[in-house]
Order: sequence, then C-alpha cells, then structure tokens
Amino acid sequence: MNVLKRFQSVKQFIKTHNINDVTKRSTHHVISIDIDGEHLKFPHVWLRDNCQCEQCFHTSARSRIIDYSNFNIDSKPKAVVKGANSVQITWDDGHTSNFKLDWLKLRSFTAESQNKYTDFIYRPKRTSWHGKEFLKICGIHDYNKIVQSDEALYEWLYDVSVYGVALIQNTPNKENAIDNIIARVGFSKQTHYGVKFTVQNVANTSNVAYLSSNLQMHTDLPYYEYCPGVNMLHCLVQTKSEGGENLLSDCHYTAQYMKENYPEEYEILTNIEVEWSDIGVEDGNEFFKLYRSPVICLDSNKEVTRINCSIPQRGNHFPGLLNVVVPWYKAHKLFFDLNQEFAAKFKTKEGDILVFDNIRLLHGRNKYEDKPNNTRKLIGGYVDWDEIYSRLRCLKVKLFPNSGIL
Amino acid sequence: MNVLKRFQSVKQFIKTHNINDVTKRSTHHVISIDIDGEHLKFPHVWLRDNCQCEQCFHTSARSRIIDYSNFNIDSKPKAVVKGANSVQITWDDGHTSNFKLDWLKLRSFTAESQNKYTDFIYRPKRTSWHGKEFLKICGIHDYNKIVQSDEALYEWLYDVSVYGVALIQNTPNKENAIDNIIARVGFSKQTHYGVKFTVQNVANTSNVAYLSSNLQMHTDLPYYEYCPGVNMLHCLVQTKSEGGENLLSDCHYTAQYMKENYPEEYEILTNIEVEWSDIGVEDGNEFFKLYRSPVICLDSNKEVTRINCSIPQRGNHFPGLLNVVVPWYKAHKLFFDLNQEFAAKFKTKEGDILVFDNIRLLHGRNKYEDKPNNTRKLIGGYVDWDEIYSRLRCLKVKLFPNSGIL
Repeated sequence: MNVLKRFQSVKQFIKTHNINDVTKRSTHHVISIDIDGEHLKFPHVWLRDNCQCEQCFHTSARSRIIDYSNFNIDSKPKAVVKGANSVQITWDDGHTSNFKLDWLKLRSFTAESQNKYTDFIYRPKRTSWHGKEFLKICGIHDYNKIVQSDEALYEWLYDVSVYGVALIQNTPNKENAIDNIIARVGFSKQTHYGVKFTVQNVANTSNVAYLSSNLQMHTDLPYYEYCPGVNMLHCLVQTKSEGGENLLSDCHYTAQYMKENYPEEYEILTNIEVEWSDIGVEDGNEFFKLYRSPVICLDSNKEVTRINCSIPQRGNHFPGLLNVVVPWYKAHKLFFDLNQEFAAKFKTKEGDILVFDNIRLLHGRNKYEDKPNNTRKLIGGYVDWDEIYSRLRCLKVKLFPNSGIL
Repeated sequence: MNVLKRFQSVKQFIKTHNINDVTKRSTHHVISIDIDGEHLKFPHVWLRDNCQCEQCFHTSARSRIIDYSNFNIDSKPKAVVKGANSVQITWDDGHTSNFKLDWLKLRSFTAESQNKYTDFIYRPKRTSWHGKEFLKICGIHDYNKIVQSDEALYEWLYDVSVYGVALIQNTPNKENAIDNIIARVGFSKQTHYGVKFTVQNVANTSNVAYLSSNLQMHTDLPYYEYCPGVNMLHCLVQTKSEGGENLLSDCHYTAQYMKENYPEEYEILTNIEVEWSDIGVEDGNEFFKLYRSPVICLDSNKEVTRINCSIPQRGNHFPGLLNVVVPWYKAHKLFFDLNQEFAAKFKTKEGDILVFDNIRLLHGRNKYEDKPNNTRKLIGGYVDWDEIYSRLRCLKVKLFPNSGIL
C-alpha cells in the first residue's frame, strides 16, 4: 500500500500512454478550494459525480443514484460559494451541490491525503518479519476479550492484517469454540473441505495435512482462485510426543530478500504461472480444482498480493514452455529453502488459536506420533480478507468517532 | 486462455530477462521420448518431481509427497527403458520412476498439447457476443434435467462458462428452488447480504437493487476482492406492469471493441484503479467494504479476467492522481454507453432462473411498478467459479472416461 510508489506507477502510465496533453487540459477542469490553509484542487466531474443531494445520493443505501445515461461529464460550475464549514456549487444546468469541507479534505488528491486515507481507512500498512523476530511481532490475544470487547477485536484483527499472524489464548476446549470468534468478524469461507475442518491423523486421507508425518511448509488451498484469506487453527489436543511444532514464515520478507539478492529468480517466480491442483472426494462430494498462478503474485504496482506454495498440491501439468521449466525449479527450490531458513518454530498449547494470513505466510508442522490416550487434534476455519477489512473499518468508525471517516 | 498468446508472453519474458543462456543450457536437461510418432521432450527435473511411485506420490490424497528439503533438482537419468505403453527411468541415485506414455503425452510441452489441455481440462475457451446475438447464444436448460442428469448439468455449466449466460426454465415456484441447482454444483458464496438474497422493492433499503426504479447496468458486489463469480436469479413473481425487463451485456465484447476502436480509453480503464464501496447494515450486521481495482482487469497475458462496474457502488474517494480523473471519467462514460448500446433486453418469466457470469457481464433492469396483487420478486444466489470449473472437470472425467484426464 505504498501510495508514493502507486503514484510513480500512475505517472509512468501517463507518460507511456502520452496522455500529458489530456492532463494539461484537465487543469482547466478543476476547482481550487482553500481548506485549513491548504490549496486543494478537485475536478469538476468528480464533484458533480459525488453530489450528496437527495436527487443524486440515496441516503439509506449510501449510494450514488445519478442516471448515467444522462450524466454530463462536462458539467461546469456557474458559481462557487464557500461558507465556514461547507462549499456550495451551482452548476451550469442549475443543479446545486453542497460539500462539507472536512468531507472534501479527506478525499483530496494530494499524496499526503491519499496516503492517510489508504493506511487509515483502506488497509493498514504491512510489516514484514524474519522468524527470529517472531516472539516480538506475534501479538497474544484473549478469547473472551475478543468475544466481548470491540477494542480487543480491533486490536487482534489489526495485528493479523499488519503482521499476518496473531495468537488467541484461553479458548474453551470445545469443537465449536472458533465459531464465536468467526462470528465476531462475519462468517466462514466454505471450501470443498467444508465450513470448518478437523486436522488429525486419518487413514486413506484425501489430504496430506491429515497425516502425522512432516507437513512441509505451504499455503492452504492454492488451487482456489479465491484462496482462503486467513486460517484459524484451534488446538484442542496437542501431542505429548516429540514434534508437532508449527513452522511459520513471512513470504513478504522472503520475497523482498529474493528481490534484493536473487533478482532473476524473483522475476521467474513472479512471472511464471504453474498449476495448483486438488483432486478427490470429501464427504461424498467430488472435487477437481486447478488454478494457474505464479508463486509470488504482484499487483500492477509490483506489490506482493498473494503467495502460492504447496509441494503436494502443485499439479503434475506444467503450463508453460519447456525452456522455463529448469529455471523455474531452481527459483522455486531457492524460495522453499529460504522460507525454511527464515521460519519461526513453536508449539501451540491446548486453548490456543493460531491465526495467520494464508496468502502471505507459509505454515508447516513437524512430524509427531499419536498415542492411545493422546491424539493430536485441531479444528480449523477460514475467513476471507474481504470480511476482515470490512470489520476493521466498521470498528474504526465506532472506536474513532471523530475521525470523519463517514 | 489463448496458449499461443501466453507463449508469446513467456517468450517475451525470457527475452526481457535475458535467461536465454539458461534455457540453452536446459536443453541438456531433457529426455526425448517418441510417443505416437511425436518426438516429445521432458525436463529431467519435472520427471523426477512427478515420479508416481508410492514413495513420491500418495495415492488416496493424489499428492506429491517428496521431501523438498532433500529434493535434488539436478537428478540425472542413468537409464531410460521404453516399453510398449510406459517408460522406466532409473536415476543417478538409484531411484526408479515409471510413467505411462499416455500420461506423459497429455502433459507434454508442445504448444498443441498445452492448448488441448487448457481448453479441455483447465477452462473452456470463451466466446464473446453482441446483444443482437443473444437469442442465438443463450442456451435454454431444464430445471429437472439439471437436477437429475449429469449430461444436462454439464451442458448448462459449459454454456455458462463459454457464453457467460444461460437460462433455466420450469423451476418450481418455491423460494428454495435454486438450492437444488446450487447443490448440484457445490455450495453458495455467502456475502454480507446472506447466503441467498431476495430482490424486491423495499423501503429504506441498504441496496439500490431493492427498489423498483431503473437499475442501471452493473456487476454485483465489485467491492468484494472475491467478487461473486456467477449470479443466479430465480423469477418467482414477474411484474405484469410495463418494465421489469433485464438488460445484459457481454463486457468481453465491449472490451475488445474498445481495444480496437478506443485504445487510449481502453488503456485507462485497464490501468487506473478506482474504489468500489458498500457501507451499511444487513440483518443487524454492519459492513464497510472497499476494494480498489480497474474497471477492466487483465491478467499478465492481457486477457480480461474481471469486470467491475456499478454506478451506485463506486466510492466517493478516487484513489489516484488528480490528472487522471478527467480522462478516467471520459473512458468510463464511453464504456457505460457502449454496454448500453450492445445490451440484450428481455423479460424473464415465472419459473426462469437467469444465470450469468457476474465478473464478465453487466446486468440491469428497467423500472416497473408493483401492484397490490402483483409484487415482483426474485430469489438470488451466487456460486464461485472455483466450484463451477471444479464440477465441470469432475463431470468430464465421468462423461469422457477414455479421455485420459486422470
């Protein structure tokens, strides 16, 4: 979410596409309004489009209701009258719009204002970490506080969005205990493994996670285009044997490390699509998932948006040219090894819910051994980022009532 | 899914990143195997990685179980022995792999083979259309046949994936009738509007879709990063008044038209992110969704992957530089107007389920008037593309048992 970077990319776009002449012309299409000592510019068309009067904006639906078939994108202001807290614009067709100055300021086009809006309202800025910093960055939260208090709920979700991981303690020893936590956010993401899932050693399993052997570091369900956003693993019974520890690695750290130290391998992993795959039957329902995507997915600003990694769930079809195969395997092995090197290792206790960003972190588990009176058992559930960011914003409105968000 | 195009993009990638020397070296890392008269090449590392023996591949989980910490990406074959239907490779560490020739052929690296795999197994190739072709391309399917027959289910889902639209008729007049159809695919996508939703005229609504006025052409829920894939609207009661017709436009057609005739506006709509927004309360649960994305989203091969468009649900914050605002509004208005021009118009009947690709088509509705004995009422539900493509592949395995897919 680096706005300056985004701006550079937009500037590059403007330059490449030779729309400088358009943008020069567009300086005649703006109004300047002084707000709190700042000289802020707003395009006419944006102001007209965002008129907040009852004819243009539906109050209960909080939605624009302008009829776009008849919308004039060349509307011009006939008069602009600034009051103490608001500005009134009369348009050339006689329509009148009123805007509060605070409302305008929050939506202004300066880099500083855009930056503030992005970090405070859109999505909090992320902080990447090396495994040796894990104890410092992994926030400890309390089950009952999250269930009861909006502040605790906010702090937990904020931690997960910034660091990609957080631990909830003191969870009741019940199979449905994570339901209360998920309900505080919104609802689960269902997959072909169900609304929730049980992680324990199972014979003839449809998924290698349901074994007691080493579970290599991976993201869950990379074969889903809509890959589960956040993974919550409630430890009901931990093994008393050796092993069973979790491994966690922040791939935003690994990606940045590769970008700096292995730029060619980084380019390969961000550009070459491979095929993620899961074929089987669960609860009588057949599934055959395939999804093509690079290991490291970038947005148009070259920021990491998603990580895909799973040894068992990478398909046996390679969707690409023969001569990228060997370079891809080399880059992928490097990525895998670096994540093992950078990983944090720790063992959850009964009552812990380990919560982590499934499209950012790799997670794994060391092998263990079930005993007759000690069968390791976790209950898992997923929640998507759409619902988590939504809940964070709703809580911000509540907890920071004077921030002028709405 | 144009493989040749994808190959061009990979070739461009290889050229840009100067990995030709690596790829030249990699010709020493392949085995050539003659299969059905074709001289097919397979990289050593890919063969070793996809060894199908019990030590390397878990049968019931259909998953690779190679320990990647110790995986040697430089494994070399010591001996290659080809039989009538299979080939045996003995590796330099003594490990032995057996591959069926059919299995290898389906996964070979020629453009022709990759193309076939992509269209037949990965995702069917799409066909775009102008509204005047609507009656020709919109397949008519029968509710009971879809519920009872795998062939009918396959044909319906194939239509939706190729054309982005299909009509189901003879649906029972029950509020939960679409549940049977959704269960045949998998399960619903839940959103903050619920697992299903009712479209009718509601006072003090949280969504402008729940009014009887003109509903401008749009995609549903563009403010979801995981935007619902397919929309199913079951017409329980249609209005007997004037109006209530649906409008549908294939944005893959519109995008291609803009690319050819308005390349600058196309570039703007594919590059400039705007903010999609929905803020409100539904069933007592608050939501505050925001998502930044261009109107026309492209993948790395410049193929259209997703369309976002909604006048009411575009936020009032513009996340970008001042000087792209006016060009963006011009390009957006053009896109909106072209979709209206290219749209098909028709009125569903009671018993119809209109099914359409929500990240490809725009849909809208003309205004209508409820009467005391005639209240228009639709029941809607969403299913994601992950589940639809998965079901299509499972059905292919069943319906084409000799295709060698698995």
